[in-house]
Formats: sequence, structure tokens, C-alpha cells
Amino acid sequence: MNRIKYPAYLDKILTPKVAAMIIKNHDVLGVSGFTKAGDSKSVLPMVADRALHEDIKVTVLSGASLGYDTDADLAKNGALYKRMPFQADPTLRKSINSHEVLYVDQHLGQTADMLQKIDSFKIDVAIIEAVGVTEEGYIIPTTSVGNSPAFTEKAEKIIIEINTTFPESLYGLHDVKFLKKQPNRDVIPVLKSDTRIGDPFIKIDPEKVVAIVYTEVPDSPAVISAPDEKTTAISKHILDFLGNEVDEGRLTESLLPLQAGIGKTANAILSGFTNSRFKDLTMYSEVLQDSTFELFDAGKLSFASASSITVTEECSKNIFSDFDKYKDKLVLRPQNISNSAEVISRLGIIGINTAIEFDIYGNVNSTHIMGTNMMNGIGGSGDFARNGYLSIFACPSMSKEGKISHIVPMVSHTDHTEHDIDILVTEQGLADIRGLAPIERARVIIDKCVHPDYKAQLLYYFEEAYKLGGQTPHILPETFSWHTRLKTEGSMKIKKVVKSIV
Amino acid sequence: MNRIKYPAYLDKILTPKVAAMIIKNHDVLGVSGFTKAGDSKSVLPMVADRALHEDIKVTVLSGASLGYDTDADLAKNGALYKRMPFQADPTLRKSINSHEVLYVDQHLGQTADMLQKIDSFKIDVAIIEAVGVTEEGYIIPTTSVGNSPAFTEKAEKIIIEINTTFPESLYGLHDVKFLKKQPNRDVIPVLKSDTRIGDPFIKIDPEKVVAIVYTEVPDSPAVISAPDEKTTAISKHILDFLGNEVDEGRLTESLLPLQAGIGKTANAILSGFTNSRFKDLTMYSEVLQDSTFELFDAGKLSFASASSITVTEECSKNIFSDFDKYKDKLVLRPQNISNSAEVISRLGIIGINTAIEFDIYGNVNSTHIMGTNMMNGIGGSGDFARNGYLSIFACPSMSKEGKISHIVPMVSHTDHTEHDIDILVTEQGLADIRGLAPIERARVIIDKCVHPDYKAQLLYYFEEAYKLGGQTPHILPETFSWHTRLKTEGSMKIKKVVKSIV
Repeated sequence: MNRIKYPAYLDKILTPKVAAMIIKNHDVLGVSGFTKAGDSKSVLPMVADRALHEDIKVTVLSGASLGYDTDADLAKNGALYKRMPFQADPTLRKSINSHEVLYVDQHLGQTADMLQKIDSFKIDVAIIEAVGVTEEGYIIPTTSVGNSPAFTEKAEKIIIEINTTFPESLYGLHDVKFLKKQPNRDVIPVLKSDTRIGDPFIKIDPEKVVAIVYTEVPDSPAVISAPDEKTTAISKHILDFLGNEVDEGRLTESLLPLQAGIGKTANAILSGFTNSRFKDLTMYSEVLQDSTFELFDAGKLSFASASSITVTEECSKNIFSDFDKYKDKLVLRPQNISNSAEVISRLGIIGINTAIEFDIYGNVNSTHIMGTNMMNGIGGSGDFARNGYLSIFACPSMSKEGKISHIVPMVSHTDHTEHDIDILVTEQGLADIRGLAPIERARVIIDKCVHPDYKAQLLYYFEEAYKLGGQTPHILPETFSWHTRLKTEGSMKIKKVVKSIV
Repeated sequence: MNRIKYPAYLDKILTPKVAAMIIKNHDVLGVSGFTKAGDSKSVLPMVADRALHEDIKVTVLSGASLGYDTDADLAKNGALYKRMPFQADPTLRKSINSHEVLYVDQHLGQTADMLQKIDSFKIDVAIIEAVGVTEEGYIIPTTSVGNSPAFTEKAEKIIIEINTTFPESLYGLHDVKFLKKQPNRDVIPVLKSDTRIGDPFIKIDPEKVVAIVYTEVPDSPAVISAPDEKTTAISKHILDFLGNEVDEGRLTESLLPLQAGIGKTANAILSGFTNSRFKDLTMYSEVLQDSTFELFDAGKLSFASASSITVTEECSKNIFSDFDKYKDKLVLRPQNISNSAEVISRLGIIGINTAIEFDIYGNVNSTHIMGTNMMNGIGGSGDFARNGYLSIFACPSMSKEGKISHIVPMVSHTDHTEHDIDILVTEQGLADIRGLAPIERARVIIDKCVHPDYKAQLLYYFEEAYKLGGQTPHILPETFSWHTRLKTEGSMKIKKVVKSIV
């Protein structure tokens, strides 16, 4: 009970089931949660349950992906009308691709701004997980800040979900600043990863709070596969490249603040720094994975800023059992600040993200399988790639026993354009395409990144296209022949091996 | 002679022909000039001349496009190895598309940063047009600032070209601030369009100056076609939309700072504000065209910030014969500040740019004809579209007597992704796609923007693709069938009219 320091809230304590009844059909919900961290574990799942028995369909805006089966159950039970700005759930993905759920795949840094600009998402109810509330009735978030400040600001009603599995010592971890709508937007004075510019709580109007619920469910743990041969090779290529930048005097051994996407590849890349020459590293990222804490423990990392902490069960135990060990080296920010164009460009972030596929001219597809089906979403990759110091994208050169080449003539969906990409890397090697014209990029990318099984085939495409001329040579009717071949013949490989003409 | 207030430079006065001899084969040149304004009119053309008689091939980095036939002659005479970050010359375009010249099509706001990051462009000689030099030997630019600060900072040698056709009263127009490389980059403290943060000159090391030349050639005048029925309709749609934003309380009648691309459409759109309800408008743009001065004269515009002034002959006479009339309402900045992600996001720019084509899901092609051939380049459109408050793209719905639809199933080259586009507009109407999922966008775009001649055909594509499912429905082998049909049959139109199945 001592987690609620604002007495007026004590009258508002409800069970999750009753609290969920506050939500009405067609409501727009703004919910906490960023890559499974700090999401609603009691009230939002109850909304999914309600949909089993009654007509209730809601629009759900979150920070990023939600944990457990919340997104899956909402989708499966028909409770979702529209979802944004990110998801990563296989069941929801299916509902999106079959048009049962509308999905707006948005830069994670831009949702809060969008809410200030348009009225179509009015936020009827915000559901925010908290460690507790302050004496003023303000919210102390848990493992993510995400879009919670923007949601509570615009919401008509607020439901606070107090999660007692997190220690109260999380208080002080967060740094919350509200950004005013233009023309009243000020400087965002983050000058380094560790600059604090706001409050350790989310300031809300306590009058908006309609319910407080308790939950004892921990964050759903991240499951991260150990680095394998390919991700280790990718990590090595990136470390070698950065080492060379240091040798040439373009960067120091502290580099510049690092950002890394989520998942196995990003985690492996960061883990690679543990036994590297680099030191006094900092992170200015959106999610912190296990690798961040490995780097702290190895003495390599001095500070990490993000919008969420998403770790494995083991790592979670380690961190939260003795949180003071890490607290002064961490800050969690709203995602319009962790992913702010202003801060990312000023600090000069080195952004490392994963691609689904990229093409010979340097365009990157981060979201769509075969140009049509949504995988997860763009997340924050565009925020960092567009405005950072270095934009690095990585993926394996080949997969599915060689049936798929991840480097193709033309990406089937463009999330990051040729103008925004600096470095492309696979287990085969790394292509530095900065300052290169498209026809120069093609040769470097084919040479460095493509699997030997596909090299001749891709070079053949390029050379045939090159003969036709153009800044970006293509044989337009053939651009997606690799994708259609995969569909019709089961492999992108041309059966009769093409011999390069050069 | 009184334009050179730094006596030590008097010994360095050379004829353009002799000064041009300083440039060596394989040199990298950083030259002033932004959309034909403030470019080198004497020395750089002499480099083109030299190539007629000797082996000289150089890389030319500029602000943006150059005036007169400089780019054409450099290309035609084989004097260009690589060109960046922008061009708009028909002869050079041809050389680029036939692979005689390498072309790096870059966001205009990012060239200066790139020079800090990589060593492959060392800038052997900077050639900078000036109104004069100060007592300290610093450069007072003419009608553009562009990348000149970055070029002079990195250059080994500097040639200053003093243009006596511009009045000395230009002194005070410019605001030059050098941005340090990360991690030492500070806040860029531009809080409003009219904030000045630097010096009215380009601070240089006078020791680098190897030649001073005089020129009496004015800027090559802009030629702008008068608004026609289509561009007037586009302008009206945009004004109506913005008026509605004001009515709904989302913007005030001063709107937010405007940015507009160059050319007929952008000029017509801005001219439309002359007889509108809006007042106390401001601009935070990259180029100022005639329409800016029309808006000043009409009392609609209170301040304009940009990186260059590119106007017609008549407008030029009007401005520069009595420059004090406009001087305190104008500032010209380096293009890494006029196009800075930080400032654009803080100020909340309304960016209005033209598209070559866009697709039913909201992706925009600004650069490539038929996906392969370079037109001009992305310019600053991406800087504004990605980080501004509103990103508007306009083009006619149809052209070449109906042979080309500018709205297609999939753009043949992506410069601005679906994630970055807010508003699409043709003479047919305006589509506000903010907060919409791709399948929602398709219906709005087809309904509002597509020419009636292509509506059924495009709807048919969408509906057939929709049946196949997916977040972004496409029939992959058919995506570019419109482009290939144009090539093989002379028109994007399907001969047998397809009847919509709905």
C-alpha cells in the first residue's frame, strides 16, 4: 500500500477486471510498454478477455511491442481495430497481413508528435504501468517510459497499474520531459548520453485517474539466442571497421554513443565490444538488452540512455536484485527524446540495426517479407539511421539453406533509402558506401556482402542493367524476379548458373 | 578595389584564367553556389575550358546546382570525375546517366557533416564567390552560403571570386556558424526563423587564400513559368487544407515556418498565399524564389531564412537596387543549418516539395525517371520531409497527354518512404494520410489524387493485390507493369479499359 503516496488514489483501487470495464467499444487506448518492458499485464489482457463475450474493438497505441500474449489475444479475440506504432507478435502479424487489424508502422520517435498534430487519436484511456505514485499523484514508470507521457497528457482517463515485482529503487531511473507543440518547442538540452533534463516521474493531472490496479506479474523475459558463427562474424566486421576509424583518427576509442536494435544480431554485435579495444563507451539507444549489462560488468560502458530495459530472466534477476549497482549509469527517457532527431544528430549516434534485405544500391527493407507482408515494423531504426553519425545495417547474406539471398537487385519494400545508409554488413564482409555513387556502391556491396553462391548471379544482373545506362541501373521488368522465383521455384537461385560476363 | 579590405590579399589578385591554373588534375573542388545563386562565374568555367586542351578531371562538390552552363561545360568537356550533392543541368544529367560522370545524390543538409566524417573528399581547392572580404580577410558571400563554410574549413587552398555586380549592402545578410564534429557538437540555438547565431561572414584562415579574382557576371536568372491551371489548383488544395487546420484549432493563421522546393509548382503554391487568409507568415527554407518577395510586398510574410536567393532577372533588379528594403527580413545560412534536422524538428517546418511520382501507399520518388535515370536530385526535400511538422508532396496527376500517371502502384525509386509522408496533392485533390494504415492510404490517395482516366485502373490493381493479403498489398510481378507499358506501348494506360470489380 505504501507504493501509493497520494491518498486520494486509495479510493480508486479496483480489480483489473473492473478497471477494464472502464474501456468502451471504439475507444483509443494509449498503453505503456516498449519492447515487452513496462507494459500493462492486467488491465489490457482483460480487454482482450472481454472481447470473447461482447462487442469491443479498440485502437491501441503503445510505446513499442507488448509482452506475453497481450497483442496476440487482442488480435485473436477480435478486440483490435487499429494498432500502432510497432508490434512484434506472430498472431497479431497474421491478423495485420490478413487485414483483420489495421496497422500503422511508424517511426517510434514520431508518435508523440503525431498526437499533438492530429485529432483522430484522442486517447480515451491511458493504461500505464508504474512502480508507484508520488505524493503529488505522479506516475513512477517501471522498465520503460515509451510514449506514456504523451498518452497521459492527451488522455481523458488514466488507469495506473502498479507492479509490485519491481523494486521501488527504480525511482530516479527515469527522466521525463514534455515537449511543447511547435511553435513553442524549446531546445532539447541533452548534450551527452547522461544529461538529465526532466523529472523522475510522469507529471499527470490526478483528476484524470479513474482506477488504480495492482499486478504481480513481472515483465515477460526476453529470449535471446547466443551469438552464432554468422552474428559473431558480423560483429567482428563492425568492430574492425570502427577500429580502423580510430586508427585513422576519425573516431576515438570511446567512439560515439551507440544505438543497437533488438534481437540476436544486435545483441551479438554489442557483446562483441566486451573483448574489444574500445573503452568508456556510451549508449544512446531505445532498448537496452543483456549486452548492455555485460558491457557494464566488463567495465567497457560508462553510461546508457534508452527508453526501455528488455532483458532475459537471468539478467533481470541480476539487475533488479541490486539495482543501485547500475542506477547511476542509466536513464530511461520518453521515446520522443531517446529517438529525437535533434538529440541524435547532435550527439552523433552510431546506429546499428538489422535489415530483412538490402539491395545493390544501398536501399534497406526492414519491415516487409516479399514486399507485402509485415514482419514487425520499422521501430526506431529510421530515427537513428536518418539523423545519426553512422547508419549501419546488418543481416546474414543468405538464409533458408541458400534459398534466400538477403542482398537483392531491388528491395521489395524501402524503409531506408540509399541517401541514408552508410555501412552494410553481412557475415561475408562490410561495405562502406559513404560518398559513393550508386554504380560504385553496387560493386562494393556485391564484392563485400554477397554470399559466394549469389555473387555471379547478382553481378550479372548489375552488369546487364548497367548496359542500359542510368544513375541507378535496373532492368525494370526483372527487378523482383528474384522474389518471384523464390515464390514459384522455391529459391532465388537461378538453376542454370550464370557466368559473369566480365 | 575597396571590396578587399584585407591588404595582404591585394598581391594575390589574378585573372580567372591564371587562377584556374592552380587547380590540378584529380583535385577535389568545393565550390560556392546553391540553385544557381552565388556560384563561381569565372574560375570554375575556366577549368571546363582547360579540359578542352589538357587532361584535367576534377571532383566538384557544391552547395546545390550551379548557374549558366558551368555544369554542362564541365561535363561536356570531360572535366568531371564525380559531382555532388546536387545538379539540375540537362547536359550533366545526360553524362551522369551514361556513366561518364559519377554522381552522389545527397541530402543537402548532410554534405558538410560528411566532410567531417570521411577523408575521401579532402577539398584541394575551394572556390567561393564573395561580395568582398573584411578587414580580417574573411569572406562576405553573395546570394548563397551553401556549403562554403565547410569547404573553406577543410580546403587546402582558397580562391575568392569577388563579384562586383552585387551591392556591398549584402553585408549583414548572412549568418555563418561552424558546427563542430561530434562529440563536440553544441546546441544549434535557432529558436525562430529570424534567430541569428553566427557571423555575417565566413571566417577563414587568410593564409589559405591563393588567389583573388574579379568577376562582373550576375547570377544566372531563374526562369519561372507562370502558374497554370494545374499548379493553381494544387495551391488551392494546400491552402484549403491549411485553412481547415486553422479552423480546427491545430494551427494559427501564421501557420509554422514554410519551406518550399524550387520550380514552377513550389512557386505557384507560395504565390497562392498572397491572397489568402494567412498572415505574419515566416519561411525557414533552403531557397527563396520570386514568390518570397511577392509575399513580402503583399505584407503576408514577416521573415524568411534560407541558404540562397534564386530569382528572375526582374525580381533581382527590384531586390538588389534597394536591398535595405528587405535586408532586415532575411537571413542566409549555411545549408547544414538551413536544412538541419535539429532546427527543422524544433521549429516544426511545413515542407512543400514536388514529386516525380508517388504510389498508392504513400512512397515518393523525387529523383529518378523510370527508376533508373537521374533527373536532378533529392536536394533538401528529405531534410524537411523527414524532420518537419508536415511533409507535403505535390505533382500533377497526369502528364504527356495522359500517357503518364504520376500515381503508380509502386514508385520506381523511393526517396521518401511511406513513414515520412503526411500529405499528397495533385490538381485533382489532396490526400491527408497521417495516421492511416497502407490499405487506408491507398483508398484515400486513389480517391483524392488520381486522374479520372487512371482511377479505375489503379483501383483494379489495388483490389487485385488486396485479395492476396499483406500489410502493403502488391502483385510483385506487376508492380512496374505501368512503367514497362509506357516504354513498350507508349502509355501507362491499359488499352482495354478495366472495370473496377467493386
